[in-house]
Amino acid sequence: MTVKPEYHEGQDRQNKLCMKIAIAQLNYLVGDFEGNLKKMLEMVARAKSEQADLVVFGELSTTGYPPRDFLEFRDFIRLADESLEQLTAASDGIGIVVGSPTVNPVPEGKDLYNSVYLLYNREVVFVQHKTLLPTYDIFDEYRYFEPAQTHHTVVFKGKRLALTVCEDIWNVGNEIPLYTVCPMDKMMPEHPDLMINVSASPFDYKHAADRLDVLRTNVARYGVPLFYSNICGAQTEIIFDGGSAVLSPDGAVYDELPYFEEALRCYQLDDVIKGGYQREQEKDKITLIHDAIILGLKDYFGKLGLKKAVLGLSGGIDSAVTAVLATRALGPENVRVVLMPSAFSSSHSVDDAKALAENLGIRYDIIPISAPYDTFNTILKEVMEGKPFDVTEENIQARIRGLILMAISNKHGNILLNTSNKSEMAVGYGTLYGDLAGGLSVIGDVYKTDVYRLAAFINKNGEVIPENSIAKPPSAELRPGQKDSDSLPDYDVLDPILHLYIEERFGPQEIIDKGYDEKLVRRILRMVNTNEFKRHQTAPVIRVTPKAFGVGRRVPIVGRYLS
Amino acid sequence: MTVKPEYHEGQDRQNKLCMKIAIAQLNYLVGDFEGNLKKMLEMVARAKSEQADLVVFGELSTTGYPPRDFLEFRDFIRLADESLEQLTAASDGIGIVVGSPTVNPVPEGKDLYNSVYLLYNREVVFVQHKTLLPTYDIFDEYRYFEPAQTHHTVVFKGKRLALTVCEDIWNVGNEIPLYTVCPMDKMMPEHPDLMINVSASPFDYKHAADRLDVLRTNVARYGVPLFYSNICGAQTEIIFDGGSAVLSPDGAVYDELPYFEEALRCYQLDDVIKGGYQREQEKDKITLIHDAIILGLKDYFGKLGLKKAVLGLSGGIDSAVTAVLATRALGPENVRVVLMPSAFSSSHSVDDAKALAENLGIRYDIIPISAPYDTFNTILKEVMEGKPFDVTEENIQARIRGLILMAISNKHGNILLNTSNKSEMAVGYGTLYGDLAGGLSVIGDVYKTDVYRLAAFINKNGEVIPENSIAKPPSAELRPGQKDSDSLPDYDVLDPILHLYIEERFGPQEIIDKGYDEKLVRRILRMVNTNEFKRHQTAPVIRVTPKAFGVGRRVPIVGRYLS
Repeated sequence: MTVKPEYHEGQDRQNKLCMKIAIAQLNYLVGDFEGNLKKMLEMVARAKSEQADLVVFGELSTTGYPPRDFLEFRDFIRLADESLEQLTAASDGIGIVVGSPTVNPVPEGKDLYNSVYLLYNREVVFVQHKTLLPTYDIFDEYRYFEPAQTHHTVVFKGKRLALTVCEDIWNVGNEIPLYTVCPMDKMMPEHPDLMINVSASPFDYKHAADRLDVLRTNVARYGVPLFYSNICGAQTEIIFDGGSAVLSPDGAVYDELPYFEEALRCYQLDDVIKGGYQREQEKDKITLIHDAIILGLKDYFGKLGLKKAVLGLSGGIDSAVTAVLATRALGPENVRVVLMPSAFSSSHSVDDAKALAENLGIRYDIIPISAPYDTFNTILKEVMEGKPFDVTEENIQARIRGLILMAISNKHGNILLNTSNKSEMAVGYGTLYGDLAGGLSVIGDVYKTDVYRLAAFINKNGEVIPENSIAKPPSAELRPGQKDSDSLPDYDVLDPILHLYIEERFGPQEIIDKGYDEKLVRRILRMVNTNEFKRHQTAPVIRVTPKAFGVGRRVPIVGRYLS
Repeated sequence: MTVKPEYHEGQDRQNKLCMKIAIAQLNYLVGDFEGNLKKMLEMVARAKSEQADLVVFGELSTTGYPPRDFLEFRDFIRLADESLEQLTAASDGIGIVVGSPTVNPVPEGKDLYNSVYLLYNREVVFVQHKTLLPTYDIFDEYRYFEPAQTHHTVVFKGKRLALTVCEDIWNVGNEIPLYTVCPMDKMMPEHPDLMINVSASPFDYKHAADRLDVLRTNVARYGVPLFYSNICGAQTEIIFDGGSAVLSPDGAVYDELPYFEEALRCYQLDDVIKGGYQREQEKDKITLIHDAIILGLKDYFGKLGLKKAVLGLSGGIDSAVTAVLATRALGPENVRVVLMPSAFSSSHSVDDAKALAENLGIRYDIIPISAPYDTFNTILKEVMEGKPFDVTEENIQARIRGLILMAISNKHGNILLNTSNKSEMAVGYGTLYGDLAGGLSVIGDVYKTDVYRLAAFINKNGEVIPENSIAKPPSAELRPGQKDSDSLPDYDVLDPILHLYIEERFGPQEIIDKGYDEKLVRRILRMVNTNEFKRHQTAPVIRVTPKAFGVGRRVPIVGRYLS
C-alpha cells in the first residue's frame, strides 16, 4: 500500500460545481474482510449509479469495529490493507472515504494509526490519522493506536475537505474536555469547505441526542457543513445505532439516517449549504432500548451463523420480556422456551408462561425439576451434614434449570439466552451457572423499573405479556412464599441508588446526600462490589445505557472498596 | 493536599554525607486504604529505627494496584489523598517516596495523574507524574491518567534524586519503543545522583529477567545507581512478584529482593555506588510458575477473607497438580476434594485420586454421578427426540459435577477451584458451567506440556502425585474409551502452535512457515477463535505467562477472523 501522506491540492479548486455526497451507513462484521469489502463495493457501485462524487463509509470499516486485539496480528493488518487496495481499485470516477488502520512507519510509538483514507481514481489520495483515541468505558483505542501528529485537509473536486475520525470532533464545547488537542482547530487554518467524519459511535439511550449536540457544536464553531457517517449493527454486546447525519452551516439537521439499520443516502452539497430543513428523528428512551436489543439479538445470532434460541420461562416479567424480544428478533419458529416448575412454583406461574408462549406462537416444553432436585438431595445428603435449607438448595434448583436448558441447547443448537435484569445482576441476585447462564444477556443492562416500562411498551397495542406476569410481586420462587422484597429494597428505591453508583460513579456519601438512607446505601454498594465475581463469569450484556456491566466497566474482583 | 509541583533545591547539596535508603517491598490490597496505610506506617517506623534517610514504597501504594475503574470515583481518590496526608504526617525525619494518584488541576485531559511523591518533615516536598502509561495486555493506564508534561529531579539531603514511576524507565534500549518520550532523558540535564523507580510490575515467567535487563540498560545509559522498588502479592489474577533491586553504577545487581514475599531492606548509598557485588537470584521457569500460583491462591483467598477450597479430583494430572498447589497455598485442613466417578470412569482413576488425597492429607468424598445422570436422561428423554449420545450427554456429566461441587461450595463456604489447563481452555476442550466452573482458574495459564513439568517438579523429592496420573494418556472420561488425542493433536504439537498464536501473535501463514501442517494450524486457530465465548464466562486465570486468557487478552466473541 503506497500512501501519499501529504495533503493534496486538486486542480479544480476554483471550479465550484455542485458536489454529490453519499453516506453509506453499513453493518460490518469484525474480521470479515471479504464480507465488509463486498458490502462496500456494492455501495460504491450504487453511489456511482446515482452520480455521487464521493461515498463515505465508517471508522475502521475494512476490519469492522471494534477489532480489539486482532489488531495485534500482522496478518490481520495485512488483510485490511488488501481490502483497502481493492477499494482503491474500485475508485474510478468516485471518491471513497473509508476508515482503515495504517502501520506506523516509525519505530517509536504504537504500531498503528486509526486512519481515514480518501481514495480516488485508483490512488490513495490522502490519509488523515485519528488524534483523539477514546480509552474509557468500552473503548481501548490507545491500546493499539498512536495519535496523529499532523492535521491537514485535502481538496477534492474543487472543495476542501476536513476528514476526521469519530472522537476527533468530540473535544469541542465540553466543560471538562478529555483531551488537550482539538484536531478541527488545527485544520481550520486551511479553510475547509466541509467536514466529513467517519465514526463507529456506539448506542446508549442518551447517545443519539448527545451526538447531534456534538455535531451542532462543531458546525456552530467552524461554520461549514458536516457529513457524519456512522456504522450500524451489533458487535457482540455493543450496538452501533447508525443515525448518521448531515448538518447545514446554519446548524440545522439537514438529514438524519435511520437508527439500527443500513442505508445509503445521497446529498447535493449546495442544498445542504442552503439549509432550511430540520429532519431530526424522535428519540424515545424505551423505544430505542427495545429496538437496540432486537438488533443486538439479530446480529449476535446472524453474525455467528446461528438461528435458534432457547430460554427458561418462569412466568415472571424478566423472562417474558426476553422471550418477546427474542421472538421479534429471530422469529417465533426460532425461539423455544422451557417451563421448569418446582415444588415452590406457583400454579399461575406456569399458566402465565404458557399464555405468553401461546401469544408469541413459540414452542414450549414443561420439564418439572422435582426429580433431579430429589436425586441431588439424596446423593448430597451426607456431604450436606444435616445443615438446614439455605441458598445452597435454592442454587441447586437454579442450576438444574441451567443444566436442562444447556442440554437442549447442546442437543438442538439453540443458544441459551440469559434473562437477568441489571438490578439483579448489580446486587448479585442470581445463581452462577444457574439463571445467570446463557450465551447472551438480553436485558442485563435494563434496570427492573425499565423492564416494566419495556413490558408496557410491548403491550401497548394489546396484551402480549400476560398482565399477571407484570402485576404480581417479583419472586425467584426458590423457597416457599419467597419474594424479591424479602432480601432487596423495592426496585423504585434500589434502581436510583444503583444508577447513581454505576452510571454516575457517586460515592456512598454523595448518594446519601441525595436523601437516601445511609444504612441502605452502604448495604447496596457492598452487594454490588462483593458480587463482581458473578458478573465476571456471565454472558456479554447487550449495552443500552452509558455504563453497562462487562467490557465497559472494569472493577477488581478482589478488593476492599465499599465491600 | 497541598503539593509543591516544582522541584525543590535542598540546602545541603554540597554535604555529600552517606545516605541510607530503605526499599519496602509490600503486598497491598486494592481499595484497602486503611490496611495499606497501616503497613506503610509500620515500615516507616522500622526504616526510622534502622536510621534510614529515605524509605521507598511502590506505585499507587495508597490505593493498591491496579485499582481499575475505582479510580473513576471521586470518593476513592479522596481516600487516597487522606492516606497520603497521614503518610506526610509520619515523615518527620525520614523521606518517604510513595506512589499515589493526583487530581489533574486543569480541565483538559484525563482527570488524574499517576504520581510519585516525596514526603519529608510533614511536607509534600516534590511530586513527579508518570509519563509512559502502559495501555496493553493487562494494563489500562491511559484509561485513567494524563501523561506528565514536565520532568524534574529533586534534591534530598544533598543528593539529587530522579524519581520515576514504573514504565517511565522502560522506554530505553528497545528496538521498537512503545513511546515517543523517554522521561529519564528529560531529567538528565539536572544531573541526578541516583534514580529511584516505584513500580507495580507484574509477574510472568520471563519478566524478572526482562526487568533486570531494563534496569541494567538504564544504569548503563545514565551512569548512576538505581533503586527499584516493586510491589508483591496477587491482585485477583495478576501476580506481582517483587524482585525489587538495587543496581550499582557499574551495572551489577547490588541486591535483588526476594520474589513473591514482602521485605524491607536498607542500603548505604556509598556502598551501592562502590559496587563490586552481583547478587541476582536464580530464575527457573517452573519454580517461578509454581511459586507464583501458590501466591496467587494465597492472596485470592486471604484478600477475600476466605480460607477453604474445594475441587473435583478426576485422577488426571490437571486436577492433581491443582490440588497440590491448593494444599501448599492453603494448608491441607482447608482443601477438600470430591471424586465423582461415572460409568465411563476407569477404576484406577478413583484409586489415583484417592492416593493423591491421602498423600496430601486432605479430605475426599466420593459421590458417583450415575443417579443424577440417569434422572436427567429420563426427564430429558422427550425433548432429546431420540437423538444419539453426543457432546450433550458428555456436558451433562460435567455439569452434574459442577453442580455437586457448587453445592458443597455454597453449603460449607469452600471456593471451587477450576482445574483446566491453558491448552484445553485455548481450544475450548471443556464444559461451560461444568469443568469450566470455579471462582479461580489455578493452572489456566499453564500449557499441558508445562503441567507435566510442574508435576515432575512437585514430585522431585518423592511421589506426591501418583505416577499413574502422570503417565496415563489424558482423557476426559466422558464416553467409553475416550482420549484427548481422539479430538486434539498431541500436546507436544498443539502447545507450540498455541504459543505462536497466543503469545507471539503469529498469523496462520507465519505458523505454517515454521513447519507446521497447514490444515492442522488452521483447525487449531479456528478452535481457539470460536471458543472465545467459553473463556468469556470462566473464572479469572492466575497469570504466569506474558499472555494469559482474561483481562490481558481482549478478542471479540462475535467475529470472523480465523473462525
